[in-house]
Amino acid sequence: MVRKNKKISCAILVIGNEILSGRTQDKNVSFLASWLNLNLGIKVLEVRIVPDIEKVIITNISSLSKKYNYVLTTGGIGPTHDDITAKSISKAFKKKYLFNKEALNILKKYYGKEFNDPRKKMAKMPQGSKLIYNPSSAAPGFIIKNVICLPGVPLILKSMIHNIKKYLRPGVKTFSLSINCQTVESKIAKELEVVQKKFKKNVEIGSYPFFRLGKIGVSIVLRSSKKINLQSCHKDIIRIVKNKDIKIIKGD
Amino acid sequence: MVRKNKKISCAILVIGNEILSGRTQDKNVSFLASWLNLNLGIKVLEVRIVPDIEKVIITNISSLSKKYNYVLTTGGIGPTHDDITAKSISKAFKKKYLFNKEALNILKKYYGKEFNDPRKKMAKMPQGSKLIYNPSSAAPGFIIKNVICLPGVPLILKSMIHNIKKYLRPGVKTFSLSINCQTVESKIAKELEVVQKKFKKNVEIGSYPFFRLGKIGVSIVLRSSKKINLQSCHKDIIRIVKNKDIKIIKGD
Repeated sequence: MVRKNKKISCAILVIGNEILSGRTQDKNVSFLASWLNLNLGIKVLEVRIVPDIEKVIITNISSLSKKYNYVLTTGGIGPTHDDITAKSISKAFKKKYLFNKEALNILKKYYGKEFNDPRKKMAKMPQGSKLIYNPSSAAPGFIIKNVICLPGVPLILKSMIHNIKKYLRPGVKTFSLSINCQTVESKIAKELEVVQKKFKKNVEIGSYPFFRLGKIGVSIVLRSSKKINLQSCHKDIIRIVKNKDIKIIKGD
Repeated sequence: MVRKNKKISCAILVIGNEILSGRTQDKNVSFLASWLNLNLGIKVLEVRIVPDIEKVIITNISSLSKKYNYVLTTGGIGPTHDDITAKSISKAFKKKYLFNKEALNILKKYYGKEFNDPRKKMAKMPQGSKLIYNPSSAAPGFIIKNVICLPGVPLILKSMIHNIKKYLRPGVKTFSLSINCQTVESKIAKELEVVQKKFKKNVEIGSYPFFRLGKIGVSIVLRSSKKINLQSCHKDIIRIVKNKDIKIIKGD
């Protein structure tokens, strides 16, 4: 018997004052969301960005970990005083916050004689955590219950991403098709609504205006876990667009 | 008597499947957070990204509007079937969802003979809303209670931003100073923690590693509503950095 994949949901919790203040542009959310769907069929259903405040992190971890299959956190696992993710998650799950022996060994080997106290802090995490290995700067992320903790620096996060795969149960992949038209939304809105009603159970149709390269246009994006419905919906929309003499722009 | 500004808080609710799926990189959060602080001293304390699902929008509007002084939403106020922000907010506040006469007039004038039903939809909003004028593409945003609804397209949102000013009560501005050092976090973590304890009531110290232009470094960012504390904290850190023979990199 083939086991059918189910819908698997995920939330991303971005932890960091620098994102909330506007100083730093988050780049991890779009990367993680695309990667999770493409590689594992896991759908991100909610993102929250919160400050480096212990009780806020605890509240969010508690509620999100109950609501979704997985929670991925980014940020706050470095060596400085404002890195409080591991300690906060320990408290959220009522686990002891202590040194992970394997993490200590990895960091000791990496830093040699320069393995000082702030660096040791990066080996502290909730008791019972499993490590997410970090090929670029050694300091590991970790998974405890259904929460996976990753660093905030995009380059390092990306280098670790394949190491989270084994901890995640795959779900149904969402496929997408885009049609970029040289038109404005209001010229196709009625017809799109009709098609959306026809495919309401299987295809999600999004309409996004764009202004680029001096051109005004609309990207119609179809998303579905069923390729057959996706293609049939795509055909319907292509027919509408052609009937209206709307030019289709190539590329995404 | 000079009336002292208080702390004014804000949440941003990003509404859009295209952001959650990873297809589109959000650019509004960092712009809005910076603009709100710089122009009005309003601090963004939470961001949520949610899908185009009515009940999800209703739940989030209800909870965030109670928790913060203001809520800014982005996305979902266009003419297509997936634009459901205005209707959802009407339901959240138990207000009628109907045509705003002023918005209808603005759109009628802008579109002339081409004022069709999808475009008329952009004039529908919760009863009692006030308009946020849109100098680039006419379709207005709106404010109802403490919730301000803006479009998702960054260029249009930016063009409307000055029109939200009159609806917002200003708070205490946060000032910031950065010190970019050619070092790694663990070499200054202990000393930063000591300084953070000294200034725990007035200055928030953030430490952010960076990897750019082939250089590894750390940005130490100090944030405070009190310039005098900020400068005194800055002096302490400069002293530490110099004592450790760490090179300071110019520029932000």
